[in-house]
Amino acid sequence: MPVERRFSDLDFLQHINNVVYNDYLQEARIRLMAELRSDFADPYFPQVLVRQEINYRKTLVLRPEPLIVEVWVTSVGRTSYALGYRILDDDGTLAADATSVMVCFDPATQGSVPIPADYRAVLVEAKEGNG
Amino acid sequence: MPVERRFSDLDFLQHINNVVYNDYLQEARIRLMAELRSDFADPYFPQVLVRQEINYRKTLVLRPEPLIVEVWVTSVGRTSYALGYRILDDDGTLAADATSVMVCFDPATQGSVPIPADYRAVLVEAKEGNG
Amino acid sequence: MPVERRFSDLDFLQHINNVVYNDYLQEARIRLMAELRSDFADPYFPQVLVRQEINYRKTLVLRPEPLIVEVWVTSVGRTSYALGYRILDDDGTLAADATSVMVCFDPATQGSVPIPADYRAVLVEAKEGNG
Amino acid sequence: MPVERRFSDLDFLQHINNVVYNDYLQEARIRLMAELRSDFADPYFPQVLVRQEINYRKTLVLRPEPLIVEVWVTSVGRTSYALGYRILDDDGTLAADATSVMVCFDPATQGSVPIPADYRAVLVEAKEGNG
Repeated sequence: MPVERRFSDLDFLQHINNVVYNDYLQEARIRLMAELRSDFADPYFPQVLVRQEINYRKTLVLRPEPLIVEVWVTSVGRTSYALGYRILDDDGTLAADATSVMVCFDPATQGSVPIPADYRAVLVEAKEGNG
Repeated sequence: MPVERRFSDLDFLQHINNVVYNDYLQEARIRLMAELRSDFADPYFPQVLVRQEINYRKTLVLRPEPLIVEVWVTSVGRTSYALGYRILDDDGTLAADATSVMVCFDPATQGSVPIPADYRAVLVEAKEGNG
Repeated sequence: MPVERRFSDLDFLQHINNVVYNDYLQEARIRLMAELRSDFADPYFPQVLVRQEINYRKTLVLRPEPLIVEVWVTSVGRTSYALGYRILDDDGTLAADATSVMVCFDPATQGSVPIPADYRAVLVEAKEGNG
Repeated sequence: MPVERRFSDLDFLQHINNVVYNDYLQEARIRLMAELRSDFADPYFPQVLVRQEINYRKTLVLRPEPLIVEVWVTSVGRTSYALGYRILDDDGTLAADATSVMVCFDPATQGSVPIPADYRAVLVEAKEGNG
């Protein structure tokens, strides 16, 4: 998924600030979810990011070409699932890789709940589609 | 270290967005470094964040009371060192914990270099001050 | 109203980016409104920023001392009201002044509607309190 | 100029926050300047935004289609010049219009200085190209 860089992403070293990488990951995650749920009558259900790990591999500068953010499903559990990511500069070099864990929860109790069956099915399908 | 929340930190769920937690960590890290290097004639040398892990424990909402971000040195190697963090809501409950790894590098070669001796000394002292 | 600066407010010239000044104004505006409506049973009603003018007077750098953002009601009309602002650096020098116009509207029709009477009363009182 | 929207541009009302409109304007301004100075040996010289006015015409929501930000030179003075902007939603409706004033300055004295002759020439040409 292409993600445009912005001037405001730069920090005072003229590099894209490390915090902004997390914004790129979020952008790709939101778009993946919108895709996966595009056929659902009621696409929204409560889920939350509980863990994220990111390895910074390369500094990025401002360029008109978009970055590429790859995102895919790496595992699907009962109440949680995991995503993998790679941020690539426009020349294809790896700028960062990351993983994150999402959990479905019940807003009333704030406890975790099973992933809705229809969403779990598309997650499993997406995971197998990676292979 | 107290860090003020801003209206613009909220996302559309009226929670502080997960990306912003990384901004709070950065803010605490920058302030810690400013403290550690406050006696140095030339406080700036090239170092870069290479890895960060964050566990989200609690959603945060907008409140006038500042958050508390704790940050401390967890280990000091030859070319890199690690930091630990805790983000606490104003009632003291844990909102997130995190770790990050910083590496000193040579801008010319982009390779890692040993931590400058004077900075390494204050890092070691800071680490022992935690114990 | 004191507003803390953040490392992430800087742009690549090591100045606080001009866009961020608007974030400071918003922060002060939100806090003023929270104050004005603090006695209301149902404090929220639809209003929207329709115009903002800002004069940049001085560049700001990152410092641990908070900025001061002053905000006050300058005029109260039937469906709209205006605010004035000054952003002061921690030494009291003027960094920016600004004005903005807020309009109350009906979400159903998206047309402007009269300011609710109780809110209009506190706005008028706040305006006279400036004099 | 197309500018992509991001999830993080939304505020808690699920609208693109008013502060972010200023980021879109900045993005378009930076790109215009990069274009105008593309033939210059030394493209950078000190200039600063001193005034900006923005009229918000329409709320914007998150959509995959980019916004269009138009930016043009409206006047060229001795030490300053002015830009006009329009932000259009992807269906072509006007979301905001704005103007800003830029001033060239001498970093040593912080006083305004004449626009460099070669840059002034391209500004005048750009202004006439609008007509």
